[in-house]
Amino acid sequence: MLKNKQDAFGQALYDFHKGGRPRVAFERHDGYIDCSENMAHYFARYRDWPGDEKMAMRFVKGRVLDIGCGPGRHAVHLQERGYDVVGIDNSRLAVKVCRLRGLRRAKVMSATQVSSGRIHVLGGRFDTVLMLGNNFGLFGSFTRAKWMLRRFRGVTNPDARILTSTLDPYDTDRPEHLAYHRYNRRLGRMGGQVRIRARYRWFASPWFDYLFVSRAELRQILDGTGWELRKTLDGPDNRYIAIIQRR
Amino acid sequence: MLKNKQDAFGQALYDFHKGGRPRVAFERHDGYIDCSENMAHYFARYRDWPGDEKMAMRFVKGRVLDIGCGPGRHAVHLQERGYDVVGIDNSRLAVKVCRLRGLRRAKVMSATQVSSGRIHVLGGRFDTVLMLGNNFGLFGSFTRAKWMLRRFRGVTNPDARILTSTLDPYDTDRPEHLAYHRYNRRLGRMGGQVRIRARYRWFASPWFDYLFVSRAELRQILDGTGWELRKTLDGPDNRYIAIIQRR
Repeated sequence: MLKNKQDAFGQALYDFHKGGRPRVAFERHDGYIDCSENMAHYFARYRDWPGDEKMAMRFVKGRVLDIGCGPGRHAVHLQERGYDVVGIDNSRLAVKVCRLRGLRRAKVMSATQVSSGRIHVLGGRFDTVLMLGNNFGLFGSFTRAKWMLRRFRGVTNPDARILTSTLDPYDTDRPEHLAYHRYNRRLGRMGGQVRIRARYRWFASPWFDYLFVSRAELRQILDGTGWELRKTLDGPDNRYIAIIQRR
Repeated sequence: MLKNKQDAFGQALYDFHKGGRPRVAFERHDGYIDCSENMAHYFARYRDWPGDEKMAMRFVKGRVLDIGCGPGRHAVHLQERGYDVVGIDNSRLAVKVCRLRGLRRAKVMSATQVSSGRIHVLGGRFDTVLMLGNNFGLFGSFTRAKWMLRRFRGVTNPDARILTSTLDPYDTDRPEHLAYHRYNRRLGRMGGQVRIRARYRWFASPWFDYLFVSRAELRQILDGTGWELRKTLDGPDNRYIAIIQRR
């Protein structure tokens, strides 16, 4: 769980919910910085979602675990559609916003804490794990992704699926992006393993790795974890949603 | 003059001019960070200026030096109204944008380079010095402000004036701002002496001091420099424009 001073993103989500128009700065470890659009995107209603996300909702079934649920864009929608949804986020303020927006089951928990030992806290096993909004990134690295995927078997039912989105980092011809991939690989990291931190006013998250993968890299990660790639949905630009099936 | 890699603000101005919608992050030395609105404000046409800036234009006379002219919001307007205007900025790209927007006399020069030794480069002495858009900040510190003001006598005619805007930093009840003033004073700085740097993509300016002063502090700074406060124009929030007259 993030400490209050670290919860830059959650604080911005909370301020947006309260009517502010905050912007978060994302700082990358090579010195690149980017200011977010305002947070409206994270609060978008279903009718305003991009087509691939709407399409992904057709693959939702049974009990749903939304990992890194933020202010609950997907979780609140699915709850309204009658699903039994649990949203988790390592940001206390994101979870607070979820509850203010009506999500009945929202917990402060990080993606790495999801394991069979927590089933009682999570209210049982799941049929669908959501990691949309580029939340494939929460897998962090090649090794950690494999470790987490194996643990996810322990909190899911036999026919469960993971719905997750990422960007193919190599689907670019911009030299500065290609240079960043080389820089990462020289450090023994995956090309799309982006080390960033979020900053907002005085709040600064710890540095963390957020992972973007190509379809080929995704298959390598899934290999041997008990999960397999069923289908991908193409999104705008270089984004795709992966439908991952438990074997 | 800023090196290319340091010209974060100029790069963003240039990208805006080219149709992008960049945002600059301003990082303060106590860890606070703020993302700018997009740059449209710096390109606003006269009809869209705030009332106090329009009012300030009535005090313009003779040859005009616009210090820290940015993309030329004021300089281009005054040139269109027939004034002989020279714009200077320490950003090569800001000056480039000025020229692209039609400003005939734009030079890469920092505020601290303005002195009688540069009169030949500047084409003669001035009757009006503009430092609007909070460009009082370019005075940097108490000591440097006095030093620069004395030097400004050497590039101005006897009846010259300086039109400059700042924010009264003490006109606030927000505890985080009051804490920052105390923090600054503990370091032997003025309360409103803000140490910041601009960051945009990979560009990062050097850290620099940007000064905000109350009216009382302004009078202390002017004392003994050969300039006196003639009038202030109240702006929105805690901003005011100072009309400063050469004695």
